[in-house]
Amino acid sequence: MIRIGILGYGNLGRGIECAVRQNPDMQLAAVFTRRAPETVKILTEGVPVYPAAEAAAHADEVDVLVLCGGSATDLPTQTPEFAQWFHVVDSFDTHANIPVHFDEVDAAAKASGKMALISAGWDPGMFSLNRLYANAVLPCGADYTFWGKGVSQGHSDAIRRIEGVKDARQYTIPVPAALDAVRSGSQPQLTTRQKHTRECFVVAEEGADLARIENEIKTMPNYFADYDTTVHFISEEELQRDHSGIPHGGFVIRTGKTGWNLEHNHIIEYSLKLDSNPEFTSSVILAYARAIYRLAQKGESGCRTVFDIAPGLLSPQSPEELRAHML
Amino acid sequence: MIRIGILGYGNLGRGIECAVRQNPDMQLAAVFTRRAPETVKILTEGVPVYPAAEAAAHADEVDVLVLCGGSATDLPTQTPEFAQWFHVVDSFDTHANIPVHFDEVDAAAKASGKMALISAGWDPGMFSLNRLYANAVLPCGADYTFWGKGVSQGHSDAIRRIEGVKDARQYTIPVPAALDAVRSGSQPQLTTRQKHTRECFVVAEEGADLARIENEIKTMPNYFADYDTTVHFISEEELQRDHSGIPHGGFVIRTGKTGWNLEHNHIIEYSLKLDSNPEFTSSVILAYARAIYRLAQKGESGCRTVFDIAPGLLSPQSPEELRAHML
Repeated sequence: MIRIGILGYGNLGRGIECAVRQNPDMQLAAVFTRRAPETVKILTEGVPVYPAAEAAAHADEVDVLVLCGGSATDLPTQTPEFAQWFHVVDSFDTHANIPVHFDEVDAAAKASGKMALISAGWDPGMFSLNRLYANAVLPCGADYTFWGKGVSQGHSDAIRRIEGVKDARQYTIPVPAALDAVRSGSQPQLTTRQKHTRECFVVAEEGADLARIENEIKTMPNYFADYDTTVHFISEEELQRDHSGIPHGGFVIRTGKTGWNLEHNHIIEYSLKLDSNPEFTSSVILAYARAIYRLAQKGESGCRTVFDIAPGLLSPQSPEELRAHML
Repeated sequence: MIRIGILGYGNLGRGIECAVRQNPDMQLAAVFTRRAPETVKILTEGVPVYPAAEAAAHADEVDVLVLCGGSATDLPTQTPEFAQWFHVVDSFDTHANIPVHFDEVDAAAKASGKMALISAGWDPGMFSLNRLYANAVLPCGADYTFWGKGVSQGHSDAIRRIEGVKDARQYTIPVPAALDAVRSGSQPQLTTRQKHTRECFVVAEEGADLARIENEIKTMPNYFADYDTTVHFISEEELQRDHSGIPHGGFVIRTGKTGWNLEHNHIIEYSLKLDSNPEFTSSVILAYARAIYRLAQKGESGCRTVFDIAPGLLSPQSPEELRAHML
């Protein structure tokens, strides 16, 4: 049994807790929290909740610690810190900062002799893998990634910061015509606006100026100004009833050419349609927790990404079983 | 530069030759053939064509030898034989016999200290990888593989063996309703007939009994009897004009559930739409040729499959570049 620890019990931490139950070779060993442990009520019976500050003292109770904090401020310090004591997996998703994060985690894990894997999830993660495989297989081609339909937490938060907004939910939606153009193999150049639309469901404060709110959303730089954005004002009840889920997904498509005169077209498409973004991310993380546990057993240490992990290491099946049944 | 050798210059061998041009770190070093070398006209200038029987004498001219024979009779003997002298990659695709083939190639490659990789391509190959990743990520779910629309060489050959048939082309086609049912997440049980239809384009001999031919096709055990099959009789000119390509493709879909009470559905879908089956297979093979070349440089030996290869090894980019740009 691989004993899994969770650091941070939010949506992702709960997702890990649920996913552990689906992996018969894993068990939840401990939850670590920065809150007062007695205020954290977890779903699994009989599993201790410890203060995060005392995690090092419980290192021998856990085989792999999953870091469930955020990429903005938590993981850049947490992952190197906890790699001192644990084999760790995180879902660091600030793409531009991955090289720096990798180096810091790698140094910490090498110093402690622990294994670490960063940026597990679906983007980065499964989408990255599909970009890499498709690029390796079709050197002459073009890549496209579309996100959605799904909830963007960052964009929802940006709307909530507008004066007069009580709550909000933002969906990122791929433009069907853009998907069709990509799938045609014509390798179109697509602008930001052509690829995705943004749909916002907003609960306004009583008496707020709706026209101003809508204008502030649609003209917000980086977040909305470059997109065709739709704003719907709805009641708090409607938001709760119709928009409380955290779905997401998307498409990674590479089209490329082969042949002596590049006369043949090929389309590789990978897509995800996820009812729960954090639960799917958790499921990916646990597969990689299994892989780094195995590498640690072999005496390896240092930081890895999904690009470094042989796929067979993710499966509870043996290499012989995989060759016989899944190849 | 990785020097690529080709053994067997048919559709797949030509595909390898074309794909080498798209990989700037590779060059074609030699073609080996069982035919009289002077009768084999290859596309690349200045590359020698040698008798297959003399391949061992040219082992130092080649870094990785790609075996382009068939899975029925060629590869079971060729891959172990040539692994005596070369690092080898094949596209062995008789799924049921992969374990035996693996063991034989592994023994040969370990004895010679060479690297080997078997069953590269798209099924087995990219489809296998996607089955494995999706299973590791969603332990509670169901798998579906659909093939087509594409030309099945085996089924086309079976039709050609019927008396009165001059030529034929058979397409395997996924049933759209079955794809939709799978994508709904309902995890349907589908029969052979529900998943695929078969469409046949047949050129009959002058005066042949068309009704008998059609009946023989539709009732042929294993090949057609379990499917809804359509037969079109066309002229030789029409066959040449409309059906001379070798397209193929298909879909690997896994749907699964997560959550404390398995309340959330997820759909992972991978699809290929290929103008040229042998050229795409060749492109996959070369990415794996790069990987085993690198492993050989590190002193590794023995047989591998796509499940054993860390994805980063497939790319000409460095791990640093991949983390910065593709993760």
